[in-house]
Amino acid sequence: MHASNADSGLDGVVAGRTALSTVSQAGVGLTYRGYCIEELAAHTTFEEVAHLLLYGELPTREELIAFVERLEASRSLPLRLRAVLEQLPASTHPMDVLRTGCSALGCCEPEQSFADQHAVAERLLVAFPSMLMYWNRFQQSGQRIETQTEEPSLAGHFLQLLHGTRPEEFQRRALDVSLILYAEHEFNASTFSARVTASTLSDLYSAITSAIGTLRGPLHGGANEAAMSLIESFADPEAAERGLLERLARKEKVMGFGHRVYKGRDPRSDVIQVWAKQLCQTPDDQSRLAVAERIESVMQREKHLFPNLDFYSAIAYSALRIPTAMFTPLFVFARTAGWSAHVFEQRSDNRLIRPIAEYIGPELRPVVR
Amino acid sequence: MHASNADSGLDGVVAGRTALSTVSQAGVGLTYRGYCIEELAAHTTFEEVAHLLLYGELPTREELIAFVERLEASRSLPLRLRAVLEQLPASTHPMDVLRTGCSALGCCEPEQSFADQHAVAERLLVAFPSMLMYWNRFQQSGQRIETQTEEPSLAGHFLQLLHGTRPEEFQRRALDVSLILYAEHEFNASTFSARVTASTLSDLYSAITSAIGTLRGPLHGGANEAAMSLIESFADPEAAERGLLERLARKEKVMGFGHRVYKGRDPRSDVIQVWAKQLCQTPDDQSRLAVAERIESVMQREKHLFPNLDFYSAIAYSALRIPTAMFTPLFVFARTAGWSAHVFEQRSDNRLIRPIAEYIGPELRPVVR
Repeated sequence: MHASNADSGLDGVVAGRTALSTVSQAGVGLTYRGYCIEELAAHTTFEEVAHLLLYGELPTREELIAFVERLEASRSLPLRLRAVLEQLPASTHPMDVLRTGCSALGCCEPEQSFADQHAVAERLLVAFPSMLMYWNRFQQSGQRIETQTEEPSLAGHFLQLLHGTRPEEFQRRALDVSLILYAEHEFNASTFSARVTASTLSDLYSAITSAIGTLRGPLHGGANEAAMSLIESFADPEAAERGLLERLARKEKVMGFGHRVYKGRDPRSDVIQVWAKQLCQTPDDQSRLAVAERIESVMQREKHLFPNLDFYSAIAYSALRIPTAMFTPLFVFARTAGWSAHVFEQRSDNRLIRPIAEYIGPELRPVVR
Repeated sequence: MHASNADSGLDGVVAGRTALSTVSQAGVGLTYRGYCIEELAAHTTFEEVAHLLLYGELPTREELIAFVERLEASRSLPLRLRAVLEQLPASTHPMDVLRTGCSALGCCEPEQSFADQHAVAERLLVAFPSMLMYWNRFQQSGQRIETQTEEPSLAGHFLQLLHGTRPEEFQRRALDVSLILYAEHEFNASTFSARVTASTLSDLYSAITSAIGTLRGPLHGGANEAAMSLIESFADPEAAERGLLERLARKEKVMGFGHRVYKGRDPRSDVIQVWAKQLCQTPDDQSRLAVAERIESVMQREKHLFPNLDFYSAIAYSALRIPTAMFTPLFVFARTAGWSAHVFEQRSDNRLIRPIAEYIGPELRPVVR
């Protein structure tokens, strides 16, 4: 019994084992299966990282070709799923669309046995961008689009579906790098919820559905959307400085800063910040960037807090003309690789995850009739 | 750091606080907000227990009338949700239907703020039987049913939707008692997954969707279906004895026996066993009951294991002519009360649930290109 965990949110409590990543261990910020995130972001693609997470190793050239071909071939959605997506109102949050789409795909193409798990994970990896854009275009313009493009990468595929034209290579690569950074992060809340679901030996769709619903919250994936709202609420750096000091005086939480596990810096932030600056080319983008940089320096000066991945990702996505409501869905596209790999791990050495609670309710009492 | 938790599935680890129930504490088997489960099963209805869980106290007569009226008024499903349900194939597992229906209802009628939480919980409580039966009848016969009946109780409503006629009072009450027994059970895996999802301040639909996907697994809610398959696989008590001994010799797990938290007996089993015997009136029912009783005595003799709630619930449900695939959904109908109350608790004193992992992966290695 560890009574002290009752109000810690399991902070610092070891709840299982993983071979997938280390967060803030031994002087290294973040590794995926032994590789530093900085090296992965510099030298690999999202598809290679997804392969690393799902299959244990970076792919050989032949393995990569086969993997990308399988992913490209899985981009179409079944008719029943399209019909489900068409019923979800235009006002629905895209995260609720993905949560429902994931669950519905599990009805249309169930995981018959754990032997199917890699096939289901690959299917979900590419089905999510298709679901989001199918629903979005149907609700915006009544169009029933084909979810195919000439872009072999997930980043390029999504940008082409979104904008209707092939992206510039540096834009595609910026999104690709962002997906690498978001792909995996140890026992964060959404991954942990996927493992709790998997621990009853439920199916992969159920586990990923849990993870999406968990990621949706403002204390988790919703943070990049909240960061964007904050940045957009200020016209210029001076307004940002004034407004932020007022918020801090009111003790309001500022999203996109600090982290439960990282204490000094978020290594992913340094990587995305470089890309965000490079992407900001129009005056509007540069104005938003200047606001973001001022927010960063005020947070550093006043609260000694560093930006986490979500903060400059918001700037990068905005410069890529991605609607704010799609920021957290992009997190889903990437993290589906990590979530799935965690479910495989949980299954390979499973024990039901079932903690206990400290009781703080009424004493024993009789039913009075 | 508690490295010993890495492979325990958080067994015995306090992960939070609750005022909702105690499991196996201080010599009392199970209490809901201070009331013994035996007293609740003897003297209250499921609606009263749901009120107790959601609002903190058993209702007064006036509160109960108002609560039941609100529930009755919430039984219809929105047209968009009906259309979604119609797309889910006839071969879908009913748990996948409820998981998808819950998520889709969250798109149609989102929880706008936490002030809506009680209304959403009440809506889900009665929407689930409606979803299941709407989908079932549409897939079985192409009929688009109205999900209204004259039965004021959830148990009666479900039995009438299922059989098309009003149930006998002792049948209705048997199901009502079963729902009381299934309504709440501290930090079991599905409830814990709901709390993990809620801890990012996500919405109630997301939390309940996670719980359904978690409950679906054979190590959790799926156990009552597995118990039924086991019982039905034996023609008579002698065959059961032989077959069970063979299974035990092969070290196969027998579902419906033992429990992570209860050590000597499951107090809920004693209650449902009495009802199960009373419900078994036809020769077929009595034959299944005899098989079940033999399985119980062999498990006691050979493994010193006691039946848990799932085992005799299977006999009771089968005698009520409920299809086996609907056993776990009934668990959902009942547990929605407990899950929702846990989400309210989590929100009232929230901390992000984010444990850490012990790393067992590769050493730091360079990306070789």
